[in-house]
Amino acid sequence: MSDSPEFGKVVIFGVGLIGGSFALALKAAGEVEEVVGFGRSIATLTQAQDLGIIDRLGVNPGQEVADADLVLIATPVGQMPEIMARIAPYLGPDTVVTDGGSTKSDVVAAARAAFGERVGQFVPAHPIAGAENSGAAAAKADLFRERKVVLTPLPENSVLNVARVRSAWEWCGAQIFELTPAEHDQVFAAVSHLPHLLSFALVHDLAVRDNSDLFFTFAASGFRDFTRIAASHPEMWRDISLANREALLVELDRYQEQLTEMRAALAAGDGQRLEEIFDTARTARRSWAEGQK
Amino acid sequence: MSDSPEFGKVVIFGVGLIGGSFALALKAAGEVEEVVGFGRSIATLTQAQDLGIIDRLGVNPGQEVADADLVLIATPVGQMPEIMARIAPYLGPDTVVTDGGSTKSDVVAAARAAFGERVGQFVPAHPIAGAENSGAAAAKADLFRERKVVLTPLPENSVLNVARVRSAWEWCGAQIFELTPAEHDQVFAAVSHLPHLLSFALVHDLAVRDNSDLFFTFAASGFRDFTRIAASHPEMWRDISLANREALLVELDRYQEQLTEMRAALAAGDGQRLEEIFDTARTARRSWAEGQK
Repeated sequence: MSDSPEFGKVVIFGVGLIGGSFALALKAAGEVEEVVGFGRSIATLTQAQDLGIIDRLGVNPGQEVADADLVLIATPVGQMPEIMARIAPYLGPDTVVTDGGSTKSDVVAAARAAFGERVGQFVPAHPIAGAENSGAAAAKADLFRERKVVLTPLPENSVLNVARVRSAWEWCGAQIFELTPAEHDQVFAAVSHLPHLLSFALVHDLAVRDNSDLFFTFAASGFRDFTRIAASHPEMWRDISLANREALLVELDRYQEQLTEMRAALAAGDGQRLEEIFDTARTARRSWAEGQK
Repeated sequence: MSDSPEFGKVVIFGVGLIGGSFALALKAAGEVEEVVGFGRSIATLTQAQDLGIIDRLGVNPGQEVADADLVLIATPVGQMPEIMARIAPYLGPDTVVTDGGSTKSDVVAAARAAFGERVGQFVPAHPIAGAENSGAAAAKADLFRERKVVLTPLPENSVLNVARVRSAWEWCGAQIFELTPAEHDQVFAAVSHLPHLLSFALVHDLAVRDNSDLFFTFAASGFRDFTRIAASHPEMWRDISLANREALLVELDRYQEQLTEMRAALAAGDGQRLEEIFDTARTARRSWAEGQK
């Protein structure tokens, strides 16, 4: 903890799990003087104030961002273009804007459209934190501790602005990585978005059968693990799928090719090839799990 | 518990987790006089005897099954045809044979080939119990308590023989279901075998990339759940896949069609259709999870 807070005013759009936990973490670190919150629900913002997450409810976005050190847009990605357009004309010269969106190419495109020549003041970020609970009430100061945050800096970003966003997340206890927006979207299409689609697809395929009860009766622990993410929020995953459509289509095609190859091995009774695939997968999965400990 | 044990001699081929737990459960219920074990490893059988799972090691399969009340073949499915052929000529007239294989059409075909006109003495079964640990040392009397066991009776089975196998599993505390072998294989292809293939395929597809480390670095909780079954035993899943090939190919084709439909919705930016699919899946998954409690 330094003598004086690193950040004076921090403005947060969307005071939910991510935005609220970010505020609480900076406060716990003593690195913010004042947090101002914006959101669609006055009730939620009032609750966040009662919980000590924000110091006050914002009224005029333009006015608040003009002298803010840091602005975090932690709303669903679909709401970001409007917020960006709203605040763009008023950004102070030293204000840094970041976001918490789980896709990056689309957010960057929106930022370019909204901020224009000042896009260098926007440093995109994706904090990777679970979303089993949501809303300000679920926010906690240690949500990001030892979790990963991916920054996807733009060529226009100054080293200083990237450093300030990095520093804010480091105060939250996170481990910081940097990828390009395209790399980010490809990686998350493969390890997160595609598995969600595959899990939804499996359950949907069972659910629409006339005799679906028969199938669900005998679903056991393997099914439970594989389909846990099929209980995820449909609207949120619709938005993520569409936002990361290009990368997701590439990964989906790649996966279908993989299935087609496995199908051919199965149809041919090629046990050796099947075992090779399974064995490579098991070795990689075990090695990954070891590294997570 | 009845006054005298329901079963006199029970012979078990393959004294591992399934076979061993079956023996322990019947013993705990006081419903077996003597358990004789056969297996490929003398060391394992000796260990099973030391653990009180079997009373003695079998030497001559034909001799032991001749006066056995019940024979359980709990080996991997691939070893069953040989064991069946070995014991077929010696089955006593009142001996009932059952199995613990996780596929049924192939086991029934092997049984028909081996037992011929006496196939009515073979009542196929599939106890659905986890296999996180294996081997006799992992066996426990309550493994099957409140777990499901699927019987797939044959037209040749007498009501009495089906009842005896049912009774044995009921003494183990299991909940008994009856399906035809084809129904069984279709259901388990869909809810178990296909998910394993899909999970193996995802991890394999990541593992073979030049930059696989980049992907695994950002794999998180959704990936963990989805891929837990990709750490399953390659040889065992090769055998299951091949044993249930026909049903699995049908399910795989169906799933690929489902993915192709989702791909089309995604490519067209049809958020409404995606959300419908996700929502149907979530509702079904939640309803299933509720029913598991």
